[in-house]
Amino acid sequence: MCGGVTVSGTGKAGARSEPIEYAEASAEVRAVYDDIMATRKTDWINNYWKVLAHHPPTLRRMWANATEVMGPGALDPLTKELIYMAVSVTNGCKYCIASHGAAARNKGMTPEQHAELVAIIGLANETNRHAVALDLQIDEQFL
Amino acid sequence: MCGGVTVSGTGKAGARSEPIEYAEASAEVRAVYDDIMATRKTDWINNYWKVLAHHPPTLRRMWANATEVMGPGALDPLTKELIYMAVSVTNGCKYCIASHGAAARNKGMTPEQHAELVAIIGLANETNRHAVALDLQIDEQFL
Amino acid sequence: MCGGVTVSGTGKAGARSEPIEYAEASAEVRAVYDDIMATRKTDWINNYWKVLAHHPPTLRRMWANATEVMGPGALDPLTKELIYMAVSVTNGCKYCIASHGAAARNKGMTPEQHAELVAIIGLANETNRHAVALDLQIDEQFL
Amino acid sequence: MCGGVTVSGTGKAGARSEPIEYAEASAEVRAVYDDIMATRKTDWINNYWKVLAHHPPTLRRMWANATEVMGPGALDPLTKELIYMAVSVTNGCKYCIASHGAAARNKGMTPEQHAELVAIIGLANETNRHAVALDLQIDEQFL
Amino acid sequence: MCGGVTVSGTGKAGARSEPIEYAEASAEVRAVYDDIMATRKTDWINNYWKVLAHHPPTLRRMWANATEVMGPGALDPLTKELIYMAVSVTNGCKYCIASHGAAARNKGMTPEQHAELVAIIGLANETNRHAVALDLQIDEQFL
Amino acid sequence: MCGGVTVSGTGKAGARSEPIEYAEASAEVRAVYDDIMATRKTDWINNYWKVLAHHPPTLRRMWANATEVMGPGALDPLTKELIYMAVSVTNGCKYCIASHGAAARNKGMTPEQHAELVAIIGLANETNRHAVALDLQIDEQFL
Repeated sequence: MCGGVTVSGTGKAGARSEPIEYAEASAEVRAVYDDIMATRKTDWINNYWKVLAHHPPTLRRMWANATEVMGPGALDPLTKELIYMAVSVTNGCKYCIASHGAAARNKGMTPEQHAELVAIIGLANETNRHAVALDLQIDEQFL
Repeated sequence: MCGGVTVSGTGKAGARSEPIEYAEASAEVRAVYDDIMATRKTDWINNYWKVLAHHPPTLRRMWANATEVMGPGALDPLTKELIYMAVSVTNGCKYCIASHGAAARNKGMTPEQHAELVAIIGLANETNRHAVALDLQIDEQFL
Repeated sequence: MCGGVTVSGTGKAGARSEPIEYAEASAEVRAVYDDIMATRKTDWINNYWKVLAHHPPTLRRMWANATEVMGPGALDPLTKELIYMAVSVTNGCKYCIASHGAAARNKGMTPEQHAELVAIIGLANETNRHAVALDLQIDEQFL
Repeated sequence: MCGGVTVSGTGKAGARSEPIEYAEASAEVRAVYDDIMATRKTDWINNYWKVLAHHPPTLRRMWANATEVMGPGALDPLTKELIYMAVSVTNGCKYCIASHGAAARNKGMTPEQHAELVAIIGLANETNRHAVALDLQIDEQFL
Repeated sequence: MCGGVTVSGTGKAGARSEPIEYAEASAEVRAVYDDIMATRKTDWINNYWKVLAHHPPTLRRMWANATEVMGPGALDPLTKELIYMAVSVTNGCKYCIASHGAAARNKGMTPEQHAELVAIIGLANETNRHAVALDLQIDEQFL
Repeated sequence: MCGGVTVSGTGKAGARSEPIEYAEASAEVRAVYDDIMATRKTDWINNYWKVLAHHPPTLRRMWANATEVMGPGALDPLTKELIYMAVSVTNGCKYCIASHGAAARNKGMTPEQHAELVAIIGLANETNRHAVALDLQIDEQFL
């Protein structure tokens, strides 16, 4: 108990935590799960949310962030997923690559688009290091 | 001289190298510069290429890579730049953020799209670390 | 204009944006600025918020996140700043090192504590690579 | 043999090396193992040290570093582990997260503290990228 | 089909793709495979190429890059592999560490050299963060 | 004062610290400076050491690490510097690129070797992301 927050769990805070299933979830957690499923028009929840659920304020906060940032806006939904993938691949996050790869495919990413995405990510990681290694001065045309 | 390759320069290989301007460039380098300007329909060359020019084989190779990867394909030109930006921001490459930010604006990126890009990059970098910290198991639905 | 959001600015979305000062800020932005100054018991706002202000929804969202995550909880305020510093140094973010370094000093970080922080960050970055290079198997005692 | 150093092993230098158990260890390696167990008041050694033991000078050197950096000082032992975790999560080192997560729990990290640690690590990784993407100028108040 | 490129595959673009074996490969892909085997004087192809083969232009392009960059030049073949390893360990790429570790051993890397490589990678990752944390000014002697 | 350690400085622990010059250094610090200059056969000290000097135990410890890791061994001095550069470029550490670039040139790195180093660093950063994006399975020949 701290600051009014209840953390469920096994005391093994640093090891892999079990996902909290709907049946065992508190009302607070279920409310977020319900919103996730309604928003996504689906009947299941992926592990990211079910593990965050051990700390309900973080579950709530992150769902609010995800809805706002990944929701409708000036960039189309597939482009948003491709940007997410670019970051996740650069950071080497396997879970995020799997989950956002699935999301991108659901939003229409074709194998050809995926191949181009991977090629661009690779190229950018390469030229980023060229620019750093050579200590390039930013052209005034870019300022 | 090595392997048939001439490297121009000052011997200060690790420090910032001066860009090689068109007027002082070899025929081999000028051929690439000409192709860059023709392809981009512009009359100037940015520092990335002018510094790579100290090692002509790398200049040629990287220009060929850039043309192939960033050229017409299954992803539209602006989306390609946004992916490039996502990688460059994640890696903290100031030169690349400046140059590809300019390219993205030239291809129509609006301030609103830029703001969403930055928000997604931030969110992905955040959730990538949540996924790693919590050692999330990949849902079978994503496999 | 997109999704009801107004982005102020110059059209130079990828280049350095000018901070938005209180005097020129919209009512929506001023409301966040007021809350920042009240919460921090100070009369100035640092550039992070003044530049985020070009996209008010992000300004509001990030201030809400920062207040919740960095506010009172199970970890004391100085420890929170040291964790923030550890991430920022590992990522090489100069702005964040400067701003959270200042915050840490305001919360009592001594030069000796700072020196130990830097030493731990360095050591962890070193042993992280040893672990990866040697493909260490996780001891069952840690599971 | 090189520079007076004997490297035990199978010749498979880049692949996963077997941990060297106490029974098979040289006197030089046993001396470090003994010190690790005495310092930690435990009767086992984790794989990091048992794999480093293939190169005794590195084993000795890293144990000396770890003792000095992670030993008693101006920061309390739990805070030191949290800083270590922040780096290891940011770098995505699974072994280090597991081992230092266990160490943190041994030193009293509660599930609530762990949840806050993860939240801060995520937030810092997010804002680090905002700062870079927006090319924030460091406020003079931070200098 | 896009831009004249055929992408083979299962439509599961983001999930692990099956390697394309020689027997099932197109003539275009076989031509690259043949060149890889001839250049390396071997009769097998590793998964990197067999998975890139789903997008033949990328397969061709990357093999051309690898041959040019890793081929004979001013640095000897083993040194080139050690540099590759240093990057791969720093980025935490397990596949690359395994494949280039094998390549380095084939080119004569001894266990002692491997141990020194790992030690240098660790030390550089450590001091890189010291330099950033302390915001070191570059000595004029280095300019 | 903590644990017998004196930290000199201004109380601005997170901001850029002034280098400590020989004339103002304590006997403990001077002893390390003397050893650095004797080992390197030079009469000046670079900023890394002069800033670490604010925390003498870290100065002593890091100098001992550097001497052991970068000193004579199974890898030649120039190769060691190239590995250091590969890490520093990948991490984007400008100070380290400048200082180890200078060291590499002092140890004979030619402009051609530098160009190849930069090309390999770029390529490895590129293929690292391909391997991660495609979730490559490690070939059994590499195990």
